[in-house]
Amino acid sequence: MRLIAFEHEGRAALGARLGEDVVTLADVVPGLPHDPVQALAALGLPEGAPALAARLEGAPRRPLKDVRLLPAVPRPGKVICIGLNYALHAKEGNNPIPDYPAVFFRGPTSLAAHGQALLRPKVSDKFDYEAELAIVIGRRARHLTEADALSCVAGYTCMNEGSIRDYQRKSAQWTMGKNFDRTGGLGPEIVTPDELPQGPNALRISSRLNGTTMQDSHTSDMIFSVPRILAILSEVMTLEPGDVIATGTPSGVGYARKPPVFMKAGDTVEIEVEGIGTLVNTVEDEG
Amino acid sequence: MRLIAFEHEGRAALGARLGEDVVTLADVVPGLPHDPVQALAALGLPEGAPALAARLEGAPRRPLKDVRLLPAVPRPGKVICIGLNYALHAKEGNNPIPDYPAVFFRGPTSLAAHGQALLRPKVSDKFDYEAELAIVIGRRARHLTEADALSCVAGYTCMNEGSIRDYQRKSAQWTMGKNFDRTGGLGPEIVTPDELPQGPNALRISSRLNGTTMQDSHTSDMIFSVPRILAILSEVMTLEPGDVIATGTPSGVGYARKPPVFMKAGDTVEIEVEGIGTLVNTVEDEG
Repeated sequence: MRLIAFEHEGRAALGARLGEDVVTLADVVPGLPHDPVQALAALGLPEGAPALAARLEGAPRRPLKDVRLLPAVPRPGKVICIGLNYALHAKEGNNPIPDYPAVFFRGPTSLAAHGQALLRPKVSDKFDYEAELAIVIGRRARHLTEADALSCVAGYTCMNEGSIRDYQRKSAQWTMGKNFDRTGGLGPEIVTPDELPQGPNALRISSRLNGTTMQDSHTSDMIFSVPRILAILSEVMTLEPGDVIATGTPSGVGYARKPPVFMKAGDTVEIEVEGIGTLVNTVEDEG
Repeated sequence: MRLIAFEHEGRAALGARLGEDVVTLADVVPGLPHDPVQALAALGLPEGAPALAARLEGAPRRPLKDVRLLPAVPRPGKVICIGLNYALHAKEGNNPIPDYPAVFFRGPTSLAAHGQALLRPKVSDKFDYEAELAIVIGRRARHLTEADALSCVAGYTCMNEGSIRDYQRKSAQWTMGKNFDRTGGLGPEIVTPDELPQGPNALRISSRLNGTTMQDSHTSDMIFSVPRILAILSEVMTLEPGDVIATGTPSGVGYARKPPVFMKAGDTVEIEVEGIGTLVNTVEDEG
């Protein structure tokens, strides 16, 4: 299944995409909350996926082109980001290979939907792209082992973990450079694990800026695999339905290029993850 | 006014404390959402404070002792924390005085209510207290100047920005040590700015562990004042109603003592901020 968050009658809703159509899940699951995070909690994915899929047959549809997409999870409780999770990316920034992941959070105000323009802020021209595989949590989980970790995953989506590089380095903590309004694309949709039988660590991942490939790697190159990330994070904190985990970006980011490449108004940036889809955003200057 | 978040008929609600009683705000403001963050957005504090105060007279009350308190804001969109914001605290950790704040986020799963036991995790015995003044945002704000910054503040509360020191230092990013489940006390209540005519940077702040004073300082010693923090943060991100900003801790934390002092099961820790109140938590081991 492919789940999308979209605006429906003035509020956020969760739907399933069927080709070029959308089914609003609250229309087919009695009592399902409209709010996407609460809906994910109620659906109990991944276990609840077959029951949900069965309800989609014959359900009322509307054209996808008539709805306004929101970030794949519009207001996650947590957006947990892993830094330096591909060896060549650590190397391009002159960072050692970590033995424990560097973790920071993004807030919901930093997110953008597929098709929405990312904002280059007034105060910086150092706006960089980062192609990432993002995990969406489906059920509450703590103290996961690597063996059982994937049992909490509702699905996967693409993230452009857009970063303002000079603000990222204004202190030792990267949070400010990772939290400018509407700098992080998330979407286009949440793809349930049954659609990725090869698993999350066997996927090609790439980014393109104005059609030119900038990053081209494979999630098998992660230093901390998806199950390992889930085990490490859940040693510390409860993962909740709707939480998003961005799993790090491969080499090829703009700041490490010679000369550096940054995004500017009018650019188009695409993040593609095999089996999941392509997240497309344009860039515009903050008004 | 003094606002509390509490559990009401199985869900989170926002109330006003009047002495030893509570008024549920949804009972007196027609159409007010139950959810505390949405309620704060609808109330439009600080401007809306006088109108709200007028509605409390003669409203139905229930005894405070009959309600279960929640963290002062139970599920904030963002919990933004400022590190190293008191000169002596920076010095005790051998950190230079920063010229830009170190910022990290906490997630809602890390919060605890006044009176609730904090959890010392299984994996560490390095659980430290941090007395902090916390700001609660009342209206959406971006690009604030220091002069107008306080116009977005719904009120203030106390925070024990509890930290697991060994996990804080497992990577250069502090996030993991700041996000163990239920390690951060937030409360007891949100005090509106009219109750603090001296302003947020003229308050004594202290912590006590089992009755012994561990930190005793003054918010006038902040490196970045409350208006300056709001200006710096809002240059980067939109502040939204219900967002919480923890403004840093003064010197006297446990890890910097000789010998170090850490919290353990059975301890009682108190955070007192002048004019706001005292946040009290016990400590228990994670089950």
